[in-house]
Amino acid sequence: MELTADEIDIGTRSPTVLLNSIDASELGVHPLDRIRIRHDGRVTTGIVEVTDELVDPGSLGVTRPLGHITGAVEVSIAPRPDSVAYLMKKLDDVELEMGELDAVVRDINNDRLNDVELSAFVSAVYTHGLSREETMCLTNAMVDVGETIEWNRDLVVDKHSIGGVAGNRVTPIVVAIVAAAGLTIPKTSSRAVTSAAGTADTMEVFCDVDFSVTEIKSIVGETNGCVVWGGAVNLSPVDDKIIRAETPLSLDPPGQVIASVLSKKKSAGATNVVIDIPYGEGAKVESLSEAREMAEDFSHVGTNLGMEIDCTITRGEQPIGRGIGPTLEARDVLSVLEGSGPPDLRVKSERLAQVLLDAASLDETAVDIVESGRAAAKFREIVAAQNGDPDVAVEDLEPGAHDSTVLAGRSGVITHVDNRHVNELARRAGAPKDHRAGVRLEHRVGDEVQEGDPLLTVYAEKEEKLDQALSFATQRKPVRVLPPDEALIEQM
Amino acid sequence: MELTADEIDIGTRSPTVLLNSIDASELGVHPLDRIRIRHDGRVTTGIVEVTDELVDPGSLGVTRPLGHITGAVEVSIAPRPDSVAYLMKKLDDVELEMGELDAVVRDINNDRLNDVELSAFVSAVYTHGLSREETMCLTNAMVDVGETIEWNRDLVVDKHSIGGVAGNRVTPIVVAIVAAAGLTIPKTSSRAVTSAAGTADTMEVFCDVDFSVTEIKSIVGETNGCVVWGGAVNLSPVDDKIIRAETPLSLDPPGQVIASVLSKKKSAGATNVVIDIPYGEGAKVESLSEAREMAEDFSHVGTNLGMEIDCTITRGEQPIGRGIGPTLEARDVLSVLEGSGPPDLRVKSERLAQVLLDAASLDETAVDIVESGRAAAKFREIVAAQNGDPDVAVEDLEPGAHDSTVLAGRSGVITHVDNRHVNELARRAGAPKDHRAGVRLEHRVGDEVQEGDPLLTVYAEKEEKLDQALSFATQRKPVRVLPPDEALIEQM
Repeated sequence: MELTADEIDIGTRSPTVLLNSIDASELGVHPLDRIRIRHDGRVTTGIVEVTDELVDPGSLGVTRPLGHITGAVEVSIAPRPDSVAYLMKKLDDVELEMGELDAVVRDINNDRLNDVELSAFVSAVYTHGLSREETMCLTNAMVDVGETIEWNRDLVVDKHSIGGVAGNRVTPIVVAIVAAAGLTIPKTSSRAVTSAAGTADTMEVFCDVDFSVTEIKSIVGETNGCVVWGGAVNLSPVDDKIIRAETPLSLDPPGQVIASVLSKKKSAGATNVVIDIPYGEGAKVESLSEAREMAEDFSHVGTNLGMEIDCTITRGEQPIGRGIGPTLEARDVLSVLEGSGPPDLRVKSERLAQVLLDAASLDETAVDIVESGRAAAKFREIVAAQNGDPDVAVEDLEPGAHDSTVLAGRSGVITHVDNRHVNELARRAGAPKDHRAGVRLEHRVGDEVQEGDPLLTVYAEKEEKLDQALSFATQRKPVRVLPPDEALIEQM
Repeated sequence: MELTADEIDIGTRSPTVLLNSIDASELGVHPLDRIRIRHDGRVTTGIVEVTDELVDPGSLGVTRPLGHITGAVEVSIAPRPDSVAYLMKKLDDVELEMGELDAVVRDINNDRLNDVELSAFVSAVYTHGLSREETMCLTNAMVDVGETIEWNRDLVVDKHSIGGVAGNRVTPIVVAIVAAAGLTIPKTSSRAVTSAAGTADTMEVFCDVDFSVTEIKSIVGETNGCVVWGGAVNLSPVDDKIIRAETPLSLDPPGQVIASVLSKKKSAGATNVVIDIPYGEGAKVESLSEAREMAEDFSHVGTNLGMEIDCTITRGEQPIGRGIGPTLEARDVLSVLEGSGPPDLRVKSERLAQVLLDAASLDETAVDIVESGRAAAKFREIVAAQNGDPDVAVEDLEPGAHDSTVLAGRSGVITHVDNRHVNELARRAGAPKDHRAGVRLEHRVGDEVQEGDPLLTVYAEKEEKLDQALSFATQRKPVRVLPPDEALIEQM
């Protein structure tokens, strides 16, 4: 069928094409089917949506991911990709082979799978798990379809945290320490999806984070390190697409997490990686035994990809640091680098950095590098290389002008500081969009408080968001205080 | 956040709302998240898509399913529905309770689940199956959210085939026979989704099929029976929504099939139902033991819903009847009713009808009702009641003007007539959109043919579709002929 293609913007997710229902019926295609579009001597696949009005008969509405297609095109029904059969096979709990996982990854990369199919793959991986062999094949396939960075150095270190812990902004500190020690650490980080801040959001408080691979090579060439947004570079693009299907379901199957993390590290050219696996109630990994299993799988798959992986299992049942939200976390980061700051954040950052220093057989210690001021100097150097102000001071990083402090309603012991509720509280206040919105925690679990003592302060850029956040805080009580004699009892 | 709602037609699937990326970021919502829309004192949930261009900041693009929302609205982020937690539980292989399945069905009915979530539910049901208890709860929940028809009669019969067999247009014949015997049979049927014709498409060759519940009651009141399109009435609407997620994956888990069929039958007011379960290579049910298991589950769940279910297990490895495609199947139907027609179609229809006659303890036989001409007369009466021409003759039902016959390339025995390939061949020729397009088969498995004998004829309304179909026939050989001495050997 010959149609005239015209761009139409209906959202940004998949390479959808809109057909008038008359043409769809004529072609025999239904919503979510695929059509082949022949244009300028090339063939592109599009996923069909059907409309009665927005697109006239004879026209093909092409969405932005297919925006290069214009003018006269020839369309025909496309066969279902082979990878749909493979994901069905996985749903039947049959282990997939290398070539099959390759096909799935290639089709995800080329947007040949629709949301229903992508979700079925994610569901199958979640429900039946991935064997180590499958995880390895999947990781390799994910590396193969993306860009990779070559460093021409024997040692390139990297760091990743499994996430789920509010605050926990260790990355800029770790990067500053190991780069100060002379190691190469090209760190790409994510923005928040469901949390109050990603490392990229926090780093953006100091400087730019959106750089090309060439720019990253230049920054790292100059300073040994960087903290940039991974979304701007095409490292393991399939990972981003899989995450789109995982997010609505809050699914994060372990094999998928390993493939996701290691494909990005391999693509970034890392040789030695420290992985932070926080565990505990409310963290992504709930028990120590699960954390240990994941650590073993990480090492096994990493070794097969030619990387050395050191896993650090950490306590994840409460936030790390005092600030939650980009600016408040940035304050913590800078404070730690300058020798003060929240002790939990400082100790955790130093420990993770030490693993990388040890992996490189360096004699110096992370603690010395921080105490000597070399980490802070290196951090300012990186900030400058990323177009930020190297002379920034903690006082410059002002949280939102609207604030309110939540007080303890009784005297007792802090028994819970809930990661999810603290995150949600900071999001209600406007984070991560409003950089200066967020939460400052006054206590950690185990602290004693008196009635009327401050528990946390909420900051917002907009007054109505402060109100929304406070009403959430009243309902959910993200920081729980129990009388001392009840603090040990979880549930009666 | 206050926005101005404006209708926008981007396709017809789900209650999607389009937000400008600036507003989405301000609200903290991502694609596929849900927002609450407060309008005219009511609250409606919409699924978010994000756009940079199609919708301006401050506007809310509402798609057709939400078309009633216009003007000033107040939007806020909506919590994830509880049913998402339940479908995740099912993905973890935990049996769901009645209240949980109720919530899932209600949320599907209200379009609160996005495609990713719907697919995860379908995948979970497929991979872990449904217990009888779950199937019963699901069926009840599906009946509860839809319309039901009351008949005020002791006996209301119905018929369903599991599908997957090309041709197989027994329904109009069964309806004519049992209605002629005085039984009430309000039959709702589907249109083709992936096949070359649904019963509704074939019936449409004779008359209208699109009627309201009131009209159906009037037609059945007059003639005892009807054959109408189920999509026009709101019986078990959730079923249609679940099928949308099953289709791209070709998933049809047995528990879901049972819930789907019985919820529609219960809603239509049936008391006695005959279920045709075709089995065999290439059919939906591959083995006799699977067919038997399904038959038991049907009876068990049906009994619990207060219906009497008789399952007939039939051979499904090849098409039934000669014609594939609406007009060609309509010819077969009318021929059988007039005493000739393909013997396999006649015998199968009479047997299924006989089960219903026996269930009603009637003395007459289906064979007699056909031979006496009473079935044909009743069929013409129903056609007239559905606004068709009661005097239609087989010769009036002309297939497409462009045709070509595929000949046997060698002498031998017909070993395969492949349901899927025959279906696909008829679809390439234009069916079901082009009613007169399709395939006429000249043989059944086991027939001997000489080189040059006709195997099948392809009919099309448009010449280029005939060419496309013939090129498919050459590649896939839907009818396979092997030399007699090789006919027994499937694969070496």
